[in-house]
Amino acid sequence: MVPHLITALTGPINELEQRILESMPAIERWFRLEWMEHTPVFYSAVGLRNAGFKLAPLSTRLHPGGFNQLSEAMLPLAVQAAMAAIEKICPEAKNLLLIPDPKQRSADELASLATLVRIFHQAGLNVRLGALEEGLGAPVELALADGGSLLLEPLLRRRGRLLLKDFDPCTILLNCDLADGVPQILKHLDEQYLLPPLHASAAQRQPGSHLVTYEEVAKRFAKLLGMDPWLINPLHARCEAPSFQAGAGLDELQTQADAILAKVRKKYKDYGINEKPFLVLKPAGRQGAPGHQVVRDAKELAGLYGPGPAALLIQEGVPTLERLDAAAVEPVVYLLDRYVVGGSCWVLSEAGAAARQVPLAFADAAQLARPGERPGASAPNRFYMYGVVARLAMLAASYELEQSDPEREELEAALPV
Amino acid sequence: MVPHLITALTGPINELEQRILESMPAIERWFRLEWMEHTPVFYSAVGLRNAGFKLAPLSTRLHPGGFNQLSEAMLPLAVQAAMAAIEKICPEAKNLLLIPDPKQRSADELASLATLVRIFHQAGLNVRLGALEEGLGAPVELALADGGSLLLEPLLRRRGRLLLKDFDPCTILLNCDLADGVPQILKHLDEQYLLPPLHASAAQRQPGSHLVTYEEVAKRFAKLLGMDPWLINPLHARCEAPSFQAGAGLDELQTQADAILAKVRKKYKDYGINEKPFLVLKPAGRQGAPGHQVVRDAKELAGLYGPGPAALLIQEGVPTLERLDAAAVEPVVYLLDRYVVGGSCWVLSEAGAAARQVPLAFADAAQLARPGERPGASAPNRFYMYGVVARLAMLAASYELEQSDPEREELEAALPV
Repeated sequence: MVPHLITALTGPINELEQRILESMPAIERWFRLEWMEHTPVFYSAVGLRNAGFKLAPLSTRLHPGGFNQLSEAMLPLAVQAAMAAIEKICPEAKNLLLIPDPKQRSADELASLATLVRIFHQAGLNVRLGALEEGLGAPVELALADGGSLLLEPLLRRRGRLLLKDFDPCTILLNCDLADGVPQILKHLDEQYLLPPLHASAAQRQPGSHLVTYEEVAKRFAKLLGMDPWLINPLHARCEAPSFQAGAGLDELQTQADAILAKVRKKYKDYGINEKPFLVLKPAGRQGAPGHQVVRDAKELAGLYGPGPAALLIQEGVPTLERLDAAAVEPVVYLLDRYVVGGSCWVLSEAGAAARQVPLAFADAAQLARPGERPGASAPNRFYMYGVVARLAMLAASYELEQSDPEREELEAALPV
Repeated sequence: MVPHLITALTGPINELEQRILESMPAIERWFRLEWMEHTPVFYSAVGLRNAGFKLAPLSTRLHPGGFNQLSEAMLPLAVQAAMAAIEKICPEAKNLLLIPDPKQRSADELASLATLVRIFHQAGLNVRLGALEEGLGAPVELALADGGSLLLEPLLRRRGRLLLKDFDPCTILLNCDLADGVPQILKHLDEQYLLPPLHASAAQRQPGSHLVTYEEVAKRFAKLLGMDPWLINPLHARCEAPSFQAGAGLDELQTQADAILAKVRKKYKDYGINEKPFLVLKPAGRQGAPGHQVVRDAKELAGLYGPGPAALLIQEGVPTLERLDAAAVEPVVYLLDRYVVGGSCWVLSEAGAAARQVPLAFADAAQLARPGERPGASAPNRFYMYGVVARLAMLAASYELEQSDPEREELEAALPV
């Protein structure tokens, strides 16, 4: 069942959609110039929040699943994007080694892998799967829901290369975020292309850096369009070594939280938004660290955490307005290299918390935008807008990876002062 | 109405389809390596003939129309291909000047232009149309069947550049084959990208060269697959200064014609094909020259032409087996840069001659091939096979343009001997 996202939206988002549609050539050219300077991440899935008055990326996964959600009609787009990416990165490539997450073996997750295999096979690569789990003595067949299967084979290291038996890949595609750390078998692979690079793994990404790079990108984009960056960028702050115990540490935290809530309240007033602002708190450490907290009043902070994390990110909460029946819906945009190749929806439970997620195909993603249609009324136009914000998030991730690239630090260290 | 091309095919074509599907990654890689050495033509439409035992390109248009035939679902593919092409050719491009054919103003032809405008607009270019017709004093609005319109503006030359009033394009897209010759206003445009280049125009292409380059490409491709190149390449010969009057000149022509007919007859026997071979004759001069002749027996040649053209191409005729109801159907594959972006069908009249052509959208073009399905039974698989042969034809055209590039001749002339 494919939902038509026709939630009636009014206000700033419709103006945003209109502005984006009117500026389509300028926006595309702006991205094109960015890609001359920055390498897009190899693939990504960006979860968005559409509040009706604000549209912001919620999460940017660099080892995405969910490709089985792409409709059959979108797959040629993904294949073409994969071809373009391969041409740029490794045009002579023959073999691709796909490394899935050992912890992700549900039917859906395997179906996503099967789709990736299909896409890269059609793009011109021989694809085989290698197992990160240790002690896999022999190949294992993983059954797929459609009756097919995937063969998972033991990884081998030989002469500094990562291989399978009788399979030497030029390219290795990680579909595992390595949240628990980089295993030895993946280190120092200097002769092969590792996509995405190791410093993209969850254990090494800093949620704080992504917020900062995204803000930078959002501000420059907003300047291009002559619009308020707030419409696409949640306000945020970073609190170092917060204390949740009563006293000076807690006061500092509450002061920062109050400051953001006040700014958000003012924005809501300026835009005539009749909602209650709230904050989302996340530890600023490893991305894999447990959950976030929703806070509506700085007084709630007391006693939230124990001794407190090393640093805390305080981010403006963005409510979700997109609905399917009564359940809140979060669109997810899939990208291969710089190209938007499809979308899906996560349908959240009515309570608002992500208790149960059911992915559904995003209708009309396979159609071109239609400038001139009434804002808010056209699903392809809305999807184009989502694609623009998703690409901003992905661009921010590519900035982030550039800045955290260990080789870059070596390079800069080597430069004469 | 979208036809499902499910003409039951048996014999060599099914084996060809199977061989192609099995070799998908190797084929895609082979093309990828070719594109490292040769620049794809900017856009093209390749008409194919599927005889059931043979699949060959019939025509390769480098200034194609018919983009309005692309289904709505295929347009994102075209946009993405356009983005990839622009990035490669002129990544900082802002403005595109589209030059239509003054002789092509039917509703369908205008709809094709409107689709091109839409595709390149979404790919990030401002697109405006310039008129080749002389004496256009002011902009003219061309009405479209869907109620919209295209604005056609007078061309200007200024400081060695081709412009419109208040519009200086970095890129000029010719949608006119210039069969009557290159107008002065298009000559010596050294600062702007002219796509395709002038030597791609019909007045300057030699049908003979395309047959030769295609044969070269087909043979190399056939070697990759370990198959008989005849399955995708019509036999041909070139007869210099033929005479159609009785005597030595006609004998020479009849001998060559007989030779090809004999070779074709042998192939039909080898493959168990129960058809009568025939030949197609074309003047080897300018592509725009009038028509071709169908000949089934060398004796028919006497008196065919008057004094005779300077040279004649004798080509094995390829019957068409694809049918929609009782009418013969010719598939057309559309390409943007190296990418297949869609297909359509020309439905010929039942007599077999192209008396009336009705374009119809090619069903299932928007789906991925499915290796493993029964050959001949899967429309996406058939379309993949068509796409491969179309890309071979386009590759041959890019070889042809390289060889006929006047700048290349200058370059070679300048090299030390």
